[in-house]
Amino acid sequence: MVIIMNTDATTQNIHDVVEAIESVGLEAKIMEGIQQKIVGVIGDKTRMASIAIDAMEGVEKSVEISKSYKLASREFHPQSSIINVAGVKIGGGNLVVMAGPCAVESREQLLASAKIVKAGGAQLLRGGAYKPRTSPYSFQGLEEEGLKYLAEARELTGLRIVTEVTEVEAVESVCKYADMLQVGARNMQNFRLLKEVGRCNKPVLLKRGLAATLNEWLNAAEYIMNEGNQNVVFCERGIRTYETYTRNTLDLSAVAAIKHLSHLPVIVDPSHGTGKWRMVKPMAFAAVAAGADGLMLEVHPNPSKALSDGPQSLTPDNYMEVMRGVKEITMFLHKQGLAIDTL
Amino acid sequence: MVIIMNTDATTQNIHDVVEAIESVGLEAKIMEGIQQKIVGVIGDKTRMASIAIDAMEGVEKSVEISKSYKLASREFHPQSSIINVAGVKIGGGNLVVMAGPCAVESREQLLASAKIVKAGGAQLLRGGAYKPRTSPYSFQGLEEEGLKYLAEARELTGLRIVTEVTEVEAVESVCKYADMLQVGARNMQNFRLLKEVGRCNKPVLLKRGLAATLNEWLNAAEYIMNEGNQNVVFCERGIRTYETYTRNTLDLSAVAAIKHLSHLPVIVDPSHGTGKWRMVKPMAFAAVAAGADGLMLEVHPNPSKALSDGPQSLTPDNYMEVMRGVKEITMFLHKQGLAIDTL
Amino acid sequence: MVIIMNTDATTQNIHDVVEAIESVGLEAKIMEGIQQKIVGVIGDKTRMASIAIDAMEGVEKSVEISKSYKLASREFHPQSSIINVAGVKIGGGNLVVMAGPCAVESREQLLASAKIVKAGGAQLLRGGAYKPRTSPYSFQGLEEEGLKYLAEARELTGLRIVTEVTEVEAVESVCKYADMLQVGARNMQNFRLLKEVGRCNKPVLLKRGLAATLNEWLNAAEYIMNEGNQNVVFCERGIRTYETYTRNTLDLSAVAAIKHLSHLPVIVDPSHGTGKWRMVKPMAFAAVAAGADGLMLEVHPNPSKALSDGPQSLTPDNYMEVMRGVKEITMFLHKQGLAIDTL
Amino acid sequence: MVIIMNTDATTQNIHDVVEAIESVGLEAKIMEGIQQKIVGVIGDKTRMASIAIDAMEGVEKSVEISKSYKLASREFHPQSSIINVAGVKIGGGNLVVMAGPCAVESREQLLASAKIVKAGGAQLLRGGAYKPRTSPYSFQGLEEEGLKYLAEARELTGLRIVTEVTEVEAVESVCKYADMLQVGARNMQNFRLLKEVGRCNKPVLLKRGLAATLNEWLNAAEYIMNEGNQNVVFCERGIRTYETYTRNTLDLSAVAAIKHLSHLPVIVDPSHGTGKWRMVKPMAFAAVAAGADGLMLEVHPNPSKALSDGPQSLTPDNYMEVMRGVKEITMFLHKQGLAIDTL
Repeated sequence: MVIIMNTDATTQNIHDVVEAIESVGLEAKIMEGIQQKIVGVIGDKTRMASIAIDAMEGVEKSVEISKSYKLASREFHPQSSIINVAGVKIGGGNLVVMAGPCAVESREQLLASAKIVKAGGAQLLRGGAYKPRTSPYSFQGLEEEGLKYLAEARELTGLRIVTEVTEVEAVESVCKYADMLQVGARNMQNFRLLKEVGRCNKPVLLKRGLAATLNEWLNAAEYIMNEGNQNVVFCERGIRTYETYTRNTLDLSAVAAIKHLSHLPVIVDPSHGTGKWRMVKPMAFAAVAAGADGLMLEVHPNPSKALSDGPQSLTPDNYMEVMRGVKEITMFLHKQGLAIDTL
Repeated sequence: MVIIMNTDATTQNIHDVVEAIESVGLEAKIMEGIQQKIVGVIGDKTRMASIAIDAMEGVEKSVEISKSYKLASREFHPQSSIINVAGVKIGGGNLVVMAGPCAVESREQLLASAKIVKAGGAQLLRGGAYKPRTSPYSFQGLEEEGLKYLAEARELTGLRIVTEVTEVEAVESVCKYADMLQVGARNMQNFRLLKEVGRCNKPVLLKRGLAATLNEWLNAAEYIMNEGNQNVVFCERGIRTYETYTRNTLDLSAVAAIKHLSHLPVIVDPSHGTGKWRMVKPMAFAAVAAGADGLMLEVHPNPSKALSDGPQSLTPDNYMEVMRGVKEITMFLHKQGLAIDTL
Repeated sequence: MVIIMNTDATTQNIHDVVEAIESVGLEAKIMEGIQQKIVGVIGDKTRMASIAIDAMEGVEKSVEISKSYKLASREFHPQSSIINVAGVKIGGGNLVVMAGPCAVESREQLLASAKIVKAGGAQLLRGGAYKPRTSPYSFQGLEEEGLKYLAEARELTGLRIVTEVTEVEAVESVCKYADMLQVGARNMQNFRLLKEVGRCNKPVLLKRGLAATLNEWLNAAEYIMNEGNQNVVFCERGIRTYETYTRNTLDLSAVAAIKHLSHLPVIVDPSHGTGKWRMVKPMAFAAVAAGADGLMLEVHPNPSKALSDGPQSLTPDNYMEVMRGVKEITMFLHKQGLAIDTL
Repeated sequence: MVIIMNTDATTQNIHDVVEAIESVGLEAKIMEGIQQKIVGVIGDKTRMASIAIDAMEGVEKSVEISKSYKLASREFHPQSSIINVAGVKIGGGNLVVMAGPCAVESREQLLASAKIVKAGGAQLLRGGAYKPRTSPYSFQGLEEEGLKYLAEARELTGLRIVTEVTEVEAVESVCKYADMLQVGARNMQNFRLLKEVGRCNKPVLLKRGLAATLNEWLNAAEYIMNEGNQNVVFCERGIRTYETYTRNTLDLSAVAAIKHLSHLPVIVDPSHGTGKWRMVKPMAFAAVAAGADGLMLEVHPNPSKALSDGPQSLTPDNYMEVMRGVKEITMFLHKQGLAIDTL
């Protein structure tokens, strides 16, 4: 941490800052510029948390230099992690696709979806049993009944199951039926839920919050890992910006950033990221080229009858076309030595 | 709802859309423009939730016209609501101030804070016992111990207590000790928590999410009210924008917007809204002039020793100065007939 | 400037950075932390512009500490400036109101507007003769003819004239007719135009860009001042955020920020800032309470017939009401010692 | 256009709205819902510009349905356009790369850059002679001298020249030396400049504004085309969001959106879009996979000595690697029928 003093900070102010730093067992170094003095802090900066240095007199601002997460950082763990989801490996050059309807609507819809998903070559089936919805009057999901259909679909197809858990009380149930737990964008900073899934023995798909910075996202993973569960996969799903043509702004540069900052895999959800089925194919191709370890795709046997997110769901035909493309592109990139690995 | 067809939509496309609308018991009206056709939907639009109209062929987009919340809307309840917090009335022209430290750090710190808060004339004491923090390594709050200190401070000063509840499991405890439950920005769309506080008999202070639209915020209130608890107070606390000089961008126009769209009171938190104690006074004055029903202020006996959010906390002296100002301005506005009521 | 090295930066990397700094005549100080080394730069940092320090090997990032503007900064000029617009003083505790229609539409409309503006007590008449419009097919303004009507309105009422200049070629004409030149939000970084108005002898009203940071805004003023024209007044008019209920998000905290960072006056435009006439009154009151040195208000004899921005224009009656309020609030704040001055 | 009336709009209000619509020669259709009435407008909506319908009593809001641009729209011109830049064709499946240093710094630097650019296989040389910079004290470019070096580089290498024009006065000079004029992000709504380049006979590269919506960007192209110059190429270069890890947030979904909404080509600038050279390769690959018609890349013989934007410039080696990748990926996508064309 570097503390930048005001141009009119007094010697006493600087003395007080140094004393505060030393009071928590850290070392302070003063650097005198022409206009401003700077105080550098040396040592374990987590100790700084107990001093409100920015509130001290004469302090202009403080700048964090070291990172506030550790387990999730590549510095701490230089080699890329591969996350095992009931035998399916995410990371390490594989392209893993998780596909399915936004919501589990009925046994028929889900089983029909699962067959399509399987036929296209995805490895995981997605489908929401607990649906977080903006309005209390929208369809909220089939809950445990939906989980059972998902498990049945697994029996039928061999697909692994990833599904969202929206509340602490449901973690146990979801763990029982699913192979991978999803923490959704709205819950990315539901710290209680993060801790709970951190105590599970199932891998976690951690979606980026609607307006989460990369730093907040990495710290959310840290909450899970700090409880003992190291099996976290990031999922970029678009961020909220001023642009309204797309539902969100898919930030593909987050793929490159995560690969640089963390050892954990990162996948991309172009369906939520754009909100328009037309854009899913180009964004899926782009995600793969950018080095994403996988994709999450919404596919529905009949999008116009979907109870949730129909406009962004692929038809079975479109899905097949996207799958053919992403598989061919992945193979090609590997063959030519063009696959993006660590940065 | 109005459905806008593509310029190249066929007669069959339009026919299908009309049929879909009628299939859920609603009426469709076709309006023919020169370039485009529009289909209007008449009737209870919540029924439209079961059709993914945007995914149908020939549909360019659909535009919502009626609101997706009802209990929180001024249309449904034209008269402004007054929320009673253990005898303190929020709304109806009173200015209610909730002040105190960001976090309850110790018995001494809290009782010292409470005396200052009381002396300045605030009606509620705030202080976090459960702290949602970006990093798992930051101070996380004293939990139930903190709640006890808050209750002790109430005994001592008569101040009512408002404190954040961050998880479903803690709702019962917080209800036992507090007079008002706060739902924080990060939990504004933690729907499970919203439902839980909706089943309490304590009023709820609902902070705006970091990147929540007004519509999402109003719908979050609807979740609470739909469970039976009508005692919701909104709290604007700044939104996330590209500007980094301030911690958040305090959106005071939200005060006017909420007063137009809803019958519920709205207060403003200039401490979190700006992240800088220097800006608290001008923004507090501005909030009052804009018609806010109250303020939430961070005050600390010694901000530079605060375990959380020191840079935005007022010293006791600054707090007294802000309180004198907001009380005088409120009285003046009422006397001169300049207080902003409904819009 | 402080340069933060990677955790794996070599001694050679650090040596190269130090050498680069010394090569432009500055002094480098190395500070060794446990994980990372930091290099501080002492001396006139504008010389750093010729080295791309962030591109050097081993560099994680560099952090600017001193400001990139000088003439506009309060550090350079501690006393608040008062800008004289043909005898009307902006700053120093006066509340100056600039009111009028968005666009000059006709002689009749403008003269009618001017009479209303005068009657309400504003000191300046605003009205656009050159209109920057998103679509080339929207009304683009009356250009020089509009300027003549503005000048005529001044003769008639004694109001000073402020009007936007959108292009270098029009600066001379606008200078001839207006008392104050406005640089609009879309041109805040039209550096050629900034330089041109910087060579004029007329004060400049500098609107904040749609997505401009405070730092960019202050630097835009620096462009004008660096050419010799010190008479700049800032105008906050709302920034672009994800919220769409309001046309822009009016950032009133910018008023406090500018007063802290700069000696120049700052006014607020709640009409463009909100895009809704209903919100103009509360936001105007809030701006005054926050310490704004003035207001810019859109008023139209008949808003529903306005060729531009009707929805945000006040009717004559609403305008009178706003004016009564802001005048009374200003007087009260001064009398009670509550007016916000420097921060 | 559809006009949504308030729930409490009177029959008179609706009558007035209908009358206003008819007064400009358009037809109004009333649609009665249960809660609200809607008025549809039929006919050429540009006529609506002369009525401020949102300001009329009883009006809740109006919703635009048809687009405000025409020449740039795919509806008007269904076939994709190919833009000819002195023999180099942009659009139609070619991948055109424009590479070079951010700024022309010296004859030596530019000629060295040009050789590298040529060797890598790009078709255009980029380099700024006029540099728009946030601070007036930063390097502002070599102006006409820089243009001459660019022309010399063309003689030497056969590369076509694209360079930014920042002011109307420079359009003539830039036209004399360059093959393609660039309008930069900060000038995307400098309407006077747009009109001027619209009167040139050189193709225009139109960068997206820092916070421009797709609609505003398309309208900016419309300004150019409306003056007679149909040769416009869009360039996505990242938008401003809350995320600060990257310089901007590269919105690759804009590529897909532009291809759907317009017939004009669109290229991507991953250098400005990310601000980090490390991210240029993955984002360049992603852009190509998403269907971009070209790329703009910053390359510098020695990035750490660059006067502008060094941190985002590729070294010659990195550039070669990116070029090899994008060429191979393009060929592969075409061969496999995976290239994204219209959407």
